[in-house]
Amino acid sequence: MPDESHKKVNDTLRLRRVAIDTYRENVAYLHRECEIYRAEGFQALSKVEIGADDHRILAVLNVVDDVGIVTPAELGLSEQAFTQLGLEDNSLVRIAQAEPPASMDAVRRKVAGERLDQSDYNAIGRDIADSRYSKTEMAAFLVASGETGLDRDEALYLTRSMVLSGERLDWNEPLVADKHCIGGIPGNRTSMLVVPIVAAHGMLIPKTSSRAITSPAGTADTMEVLAKVEHSPDALRQIVHRARGCIAWGGTARLAPVDDMLISVQRPLGVDSMGQMVASILAKKIAAGSTHLLLDIPVGPTAKVRSMRQALQLRKLFEFVGDELGLHLEVIITDGRQPIGRGIGPVLEARDVMQVLENDPNAPADLRQNALRLAGRVLEFDPDVRGGRGFAIARDILDSGRALAKMNDIIERQGRQGRQIEVGPRSFEVLAPETGTVTGIDNLQLARIARMAGAPMDMGAGVDLFKKLGDPVTGGERLYRVHAAFRADYKFAKRLTERSSGYTIGTRDQIPKPYVD
Amino acid sequence: MPDESHKKVNDTLRLRRVAIDTYRENVAYLHRECEIYRAEGFQALSKVEIGADDHRILAVLNVVDDVGIVTPAELGLSEQAFTQLGLEDNSLVRIAQAEPPASMDAVRRKVAGERLDQSDYNAIGRDIADSRYSKTEMAAFLVASGETGLDRDEALYLTRSMVLSGERLDWNEPLVADKHCIGGIPGNRTSMLVVPIVAAHGMLIPKTSSRAITSPAGTADTMEVLAKVEHSPDALRQIVHRARGCIAWGGTARLAPVDDMLISVQRPLGVDSMGQMVASILAKKIAAGSTHLLLDIPVGPTAKVRSMRQALQLRKLFEFVGDELGLHLEVIITDGRQPIGRGIGPVLEARDVMQVLENDPNAPADLRQNALRLAGRVLEFDPDVRGGRGFAIARDILDSGRALAKMNDIIERQGRQGRQIEVGPRSFEVLAPETGTVTGIDNLQLARIARMAGAPMDMGAGVDLFKKLGDPVTGGERLYRVHAAFRADYKFAKRLTERSSGYTIGTRDQIPKPYVD
Repeated sequence: MPDESHKKVNDTLRLRRVAIDTYRENVAYLHRECEIYRAEGFQALSKVEIGADDHRILAVLNVVDDVGIVTPAELGLSEQAFTQLGLEDNSLVRIAQAEPPASMDAVRRKVAGERLDQSDYNAIGRDIADSRYSKTEMAAFLVASGETGLDRDEALYLTRSMVLSGERLDWNEPLVADKHCIGGIPGNRTSMLVVPIVAAHGMLIPKTSSRAITSPAGTADTMEVLAKVEHSPDALRQIVHRARGCIAWGGTARLAPVDDMLISVQRPLGVDSMGQMVASILAKKIAAGSTHLLLDIPVGPTAKVRSMRQALQLRKLFEFVGDELGLHLEVIITDGRQPIGRGIGPVLEARDVMQVLENDPNAPADLRQNALRLAGRVLEFDPDVRGGRGFAIARDILDSGRALAKMNDIIERQGRQGRQIEVGPRSFEVLAPETGTVTGIDNLQLARIARMAGAPMDMGAGVDLFKKLGDPVTGGERLYRVHAAFRADYKFAKRLTERSSGYTIGTRDQIPKPYVD
Repeated sequence: MPDESHKKVNDTLRLRRVAIDTYRENVAYLHRECEIYRAEGFQALSKVEIGADDHRILAVLNVVDDVGIVTPAELGLSEQAFTQLGLEDNSLVRIAQAEPPASMDAVRRKVAGERLDQSDYNAIGRDIADSRYSKTEMAAFLVASGETGLDRDEALYLTRSMVLSGERLDWNEPLVADKHCIGGIPGNRTSMLVVPIVAAHGMLIPKTSSRAITSPAGTADTMEVLAKVEHSPDALRQIVHRARGCIAWGGTARLAPVDDMLISVQRPLGVDSMGQMVASILAKKIAAGSTHLLLDIPVGPTAKVRSMRQALQLRKLFEFVGDELGLHLEVIITDGRQPIGRGIGPVLEARDVMQVLENDPNAPADLRQNALRLAGRVLEFDPDVRGGRGFAIARDILDSGRALAKMNDIIERQGRQGRQIEVGPRSFEVLAPETGTVTGIDNLQLARIARMAGAPMDMGAGVDLFKKLGDPVTGGERLYRVHAAFRADYKFAKRLTERSSGYTIGTRDQIPKPYVD
């Protein structure tokens, strides 16, 4: 048994790009017969570290028995992992057992019920940003800090650590307005109306949004029907400098990237908590350079927030964290009993937005009204706008066509979408089972149907509503139409509507009262 | 936009086995250009359902751009997924969006702090057994029910649901003895001594064990150095019928499979809880048909249980759940301040065990003493053995060579290991940095070093201890030797010992007192 510690050993493998897209999870492929590394031993570990010199990534290891994928002298990396490592094909790389992230100790203390401090949250944020957390480790953190687990100071610490994890935009203006909805209401595309109205007034409103994760459309997905939404931070600065606003995807700017990583685990799990929601939203806004934020909290029986009590609790938490971080924040609680507008899905929602901007008599009145109320409140961030006058100014800007002109200005500067995107060609209608009044439209079920139909990946897929709360219907009358592009999606969506249409038909007195007016 | 609901569509793909071993996670491979299913849309989902007729599995979807892996007309499955689906290559299969498991609602209630009832735990157990849970969903359940989250009734419910999830062995005898240690102490291979002693006495002791997950050796891994450990339940019954005992891997019998699935997520996360530990151990024992169980809880500064207070709490929880489930259960608290015996790793631990059985004067005295105490207590389950006489009977059986003879009987019946497995050929020694007394040996660090060296995958890898607590050492004297087979493992283990040897050298008065005698 000779001591080999001084023997020079060549333990490198040749890097190979494997054409497998593993979606937000780095995967490395090692041949079972690899003579340098014991493939099966590594596999039981949660992660390995791969790289050379300064280029290092963490990945999950899969063992391969097909030299067509990797040979025993090669190390394969999935598309994402290869890109993230940033080395050429055939580079020489090494594998090491990845240490579990040091900050998992803090997560374990959190699981045990302890309160963590700012330095714990910063360490967790750094390790997540460096991709040191596996999905299960992120899930452990999310659950431990979920529901009952984050007090308001911890929500603040988490927000700060998320801001620190990425870049921060600076617009060099004293008032940078922003508007955000906590989500959960299909069709609620008010941002695409608020931005042109507010920018037409002259205020700076650089709106960056995410793409949908579990919903059928995000603002970025819907804007993409009309214009390019992926711009570098520099390009975005140019656009905003000239148009006073933008409606773009926030993903290019590396704003609070830890938030994106956590959300990709949290949304499919469906474990939500106030502390995480507040940290997620405010970290993104602060990183985006916003100084003034209007927050829309819709309340309704199938909304994210289901009682006024809960809405007020959430408002106070937003206010506390916002104040501590120097953000001018106002909260508006809105009616979230049903989807807003008619369309659900990018193309259908973009149609609704354009109808409102064009003052089309068929434009959905609820979308217009909501957008005007929100725009009015944002306008009142302007010191020169008298309290209470915002709504009228917003209405003027919309009715006069200046909002439409501004929207076209923004679209041109972002780059008009080259191709005309149509609604999904395969469609079916869902009919009222009986005569009566629409007494309920389940936000969650309608969103699910639109997703099953293919939204947001297929921009033309989704749901087009013909009836809203309080509308009278006769048995056999159309409630809504579902659009899909792929036949499998068409079938999935149809099956889902057959299980539950999402509509309830009853008598007028059964319509739930709005929590707000 | 024609209604297509009545049109017959052919939405099947040809099944292809992909030679990638994805370790406990089903992965499906779909070509990006697949014309039937929108590959990218499916990917954002946590799982898809794949199959035909009664053969259905759930899998994570990866998108492929290489027709060498799958063509647009094929659906690829990783090794595990292919085996689990149980269909032939080229079978026609369909994909569907997998619904999130219905019992995740209960998990979300648990996250929110609610107490769950027996039917909730049964539903969770069923969904996990059916592979409906993703790893992140299992992590969410584990964390929500961890540390502070399971009261004793819930520990009982979880145990019951785990028992229900699999098979249950029946040995057709009134007294089926078993012995289990909660783990955490390297080298603690007393089961391999207790079983032959107890079986030699004539009591039935069919010991089924797991393989190591995060430890350097499990009882099944160590027994495999000497004999075959994978037997069908029927073969096991034959062996036990004739030998009165066995030392086998429990994995072939589908005993409480939910426990294995949860453990595979829980161990790497390092979130442990009393409730989960009790449920995991007792579910396996009840499923294995045990009627009488002796439980070993080692206590020490680097053991799983670190204070007598905690040990007593754990004992009471074991007793409560055991009583409710009709198991005759006794708990013994032992000294867990340091590893037991000398070897850590399958081959080295098997050597220690055989030395004790052979009454070798070099046999590790602590391993012998521990095994005799435990065997004595198990023997006292026999109504014909007078209280307090078990130890002497056990010692008689060991000293007379009857235990060795019984071990050889069990090895022959299970099938003697054909090849002689040697210790790892690459080795290095770790030396005492100064003169003094060994005042601490860190169980966790020694286990980590043995794992880094390759144990348990390389059976010959591990650590061989030369010094134990209280031993005097002079600077430069050997503390232990590390054995490895692969050069990468050798280097990893060496680096780890350089960071910390796991030994502390001091003065005699610094040796921690044992919590028990």
